[in-house]
Amino acid sequence: MVGTTTEAASGRGQPWSEAEISRLLAAPARVAQGWVPGPPPNKPVISLYAGVPDAPTFPVAEIGEAVHTVLEREPAPALEYLLGTPQGVVELRQLVVDVMEPEPGLALGAENVVITSGSAHAFACVCQTFLDAGDYVVIEAPTYAGAIRAAKGSSARFAAVPIDEHGLRADLLDETLERLEREGTPAKFIYTIPVFHNPAGVTAPLERRRQLLEVASRHRVLIVEDDAYGELRYRGEAVPSMLSLSGGEGVLRCGTVSKTIAPGLRVGWIKGPKPLIDALVRMRFDNGTSPFAQRTVRAYVEAGHFRPHVGVVRDVYKRKFEAMDAALGEHLGGLCSWTDPDGGFFIWVKLPEGVTDLGLQPFAWDEGVSYFPGSAFYMDDTDPACHAHIRLAFSAVKLDQIGEAVARLGRSVRAAASAR
Amino acid sequence: MVGTTTEAASGRGQPWSEAEISRLLAAPARVAQGWVPGPPPNKPVISLYAGVPDAPTFPVAEIGEAVHTVLEREPAPALEYLLGTPQGVVELRQLVVDVMEPEPGLALGAENVVITSGSAHAFACVCQTFLDAGDYVVIEAPTYAGAIRAAKGSSARFAAVPIDEHGLRADLLDETLERLEREGTPAKFIYTIPVFHNPAGVTAPLERRRQLLEVASRHRVLIVEDDAYGELRYRGEAVPSMLSLSGGEGVLRCGTVSKTIAPGLRVGWIKGPKPLIDALVRMRFDNGTSPFAQRTVRAYVEAGHFRPHVGVVRDVYKRKFEAMDAALGEHLGGLCSWTDPDGGFFIWVKLPEGVTDLGLQPFAWDEGVSYFPGSAFYMDDTDPACHAHIRLAFSAVKLDQIGEAVARLGRSVRAAASAR
Repeated sequence: MVGTTTEAASGRGQPWSEAEISRLLAAPARVAQGWVPGPPPNKPVISLYAGVPDAPTFPVAEIGEAVHTVLEREPAPALEYLLGTPQGVVELRQLVVDVMEPEPGLALGAENVVITSGSAHAFACVCQTFLDAGDYVVIEAPTYAGAIRAAKGSSARFAAVPIDEHGLRADLLDETLERLEREGTPAKFIYTIPVFHNPAGVTAPLERRRQLLEVASRHRVLIVEDDAYGELRYRGEAVPSMLSLSGGEGVLRCGTVSKTIAPGLRVGWIKGPKPLIDALVRMRFDNGTSPFAQRTVRAYVEAGHFRPHVGVVRDVYKRKFEAMDAALGEHLGGLCSWTDPDGGFFIWVKLPEGVTDLGLQPFAWDEGVSYFPGSAFYMDDTDPACHAHIRLAFSAVKLDQIGEAVARLGRSVRAAASAR
Repeated sequence: MVGTTTEAASGRGQPWSEAEISRLLAAPARVAQGWVPGPPPNKPVISLYAGVPDAPTFPVAEIGEAVHTVLEREPAPALEYLLGTPQGVVELRQLVVDVMEPEPGLALGAENVVITSGSAHAFACVCQTFLDAGDYVVIEAPTYAGAIRAAKGSSARFAAVPIDEHGLRADLLDETLERLEREGTPAKFIYTIPVFHNPAGVTAPLERRRQLLEVASRHRVLIVEDDAYGELRYRGEAVPSMLSLSGGEGVLRCGTVSKTIAPGLRVGWIKGPKPLIDALVRMRFDNGTSPFAQRTVRAYVEAGHFRPHVGVVRDVYKRKFEAMDAALGEHLGGLCSWTDPDGGFFIWVKLPEGVTDLGLQPFAWDEGVSYFPGSAFYMDDTDPACHAHIRLAFSAVKLDQIGEAVARLGRSVRAAASAR
């Protein structure tokens, strides 16, 4: 019955205790983690921390023009709800397959694309569409920290398979998929970053990709191919995507404009077989990605800016990579080893014996440099081995500060090594 | 082991069967439904179907100015990833509590707000943060069709409680919460639309809100208050929100700029007690809502456009409501009854005995008018009673077409009634 006390009549009930609030939360929300914190605000650093683009290259004027075009030409559909379907603006979906991320040899159309609010959102959409509580997913060790957060915040289970200098290990993948089948919990999908890996910087060559596809197809497990960095190749030949090698079956490929145009637009996509894309669309309960942002990207690409701008940013990151690689040789040679990426944003540095990613942090912050601790890229960070690396992002730091940043890092590593 | 046949070596595996794809999907993705279809494209209609704003009122020039301000003043944070936290741009969160949706009598700050990508996304965030598989939620019957879709696409369970002309029935809510407790499955939250209800147009008065708060607080169940339409009141006095009546505990209030500025921006929010907001932020795996869109809304509001524009659109909808109400009297008087909303976008029409929402559709499309079938607003549409209503949206139709649309509807209802 409806209460009659003064307090109840006012609408103000008993205050809520922490325990009561915790009981209301979903189990994953009780353990979900926030973003990995950067250095404390009282420590001014040169940041090699976040995997964010070079802000001065943002094509601000061209984005402004694109917005102007959209508001002149199509204000109503741009400012209206996405009408008809949450799948996304059809012209942008067509541009994805024609211009932004074509798949040579595959006949894909707009129906093979769903627009997402960036590629982190794409991974969240895939999890929501394919995972029931307790289902298994294979992820790489190490892998993208955002996927780790999403994994820990889901009610699915995750099996980690190591990578080597050629990406995900096909032999260990095969063993893991076999084990999961034997245990009655076959994996639903494999989340892999085959190109310019975040954090490790490695790229799976053609042969490895074919092995992975063979293993996945034989086990009837989907591959989710995260390709956020593929356009940023500054040396060597591009490798065909897993999606294109698959012939268009059993693979979903996630892309984004976050590294090529600007992450603040929150526009990405998932591309793949129509039945899987249709399922992803049915599970969109957010009314779709902003049509204003989608149409801005469309106008930007239609104006011919996309390919030239990718060329510009690729050169910027190439110079930054070369500067960091040279500085590492100068300041950390003989002390650390590091990966040698052909593109992307990251170098993965192996620390000397006895120095850990977290142990090094106070030294680095005191010297005035920050990085991303390697353990944040492992699902299970209790294994001491996962504390042996740090990730350096050379994407956002100013070119002329890279040498100084790495010199500071070199002094930090020496200080940490002698302090143990 | 890695395969060696030619086909496997190429990366192309066996084609995937429908059954194999279905097995990979999460259980909710197998049954999730798409958007309720509108009239077929070969039937030109005056649309009373979608709950979308009046496009000619979109403040296109002011949004263009706001984008210009953002790209001049703060291009990097607008086009960059949202830094620090996915909670949202702090200045916009502050504007939500200061200008856009203040709660008189409650001391709320930016820490009490998380920015979402619209209010449908807000509901999806709430579901993800509070619901484990099998958990119960109470929804209204009828309720927002987007919430029905999300409900059917989740692995939670939903108990529906009827509304009356004063909104959600507090007595039946109490019974339902008691029953769920008795059955060992207490509800996690109650999803309610207390103002200008979608689809029914009704508003819960102060006394009903206090009753609902008392019942929810006594059962220790959260209230999720969806307030997408509250600013669009064209007569009578505003009623304090459930959040403000609660004293700031046990309620999450969802708002949006979709009805006041433009839905294409995909900017909304959830406001409430900090521990609940913090949990929602921890469960954001999409890197947050577009900072470009957030900063555009911020600049628009800071330029002083928000309150005057709300006044403009409120008048537009008031005139449309009055036109539709008059037309209903003229063309459906004595045949149907309908709700008498004080604001919002919708009138909820009860059909004559023997005419159903779906049965009427071909007649209406032949006459050249469309509406939203009432059964789409019920979780369980097998009950014949849920086919007795249709929802008319007067928001997007041109003012001078409302009379003709309702005249067509009147002829359709008469034709359907005599055809049975």
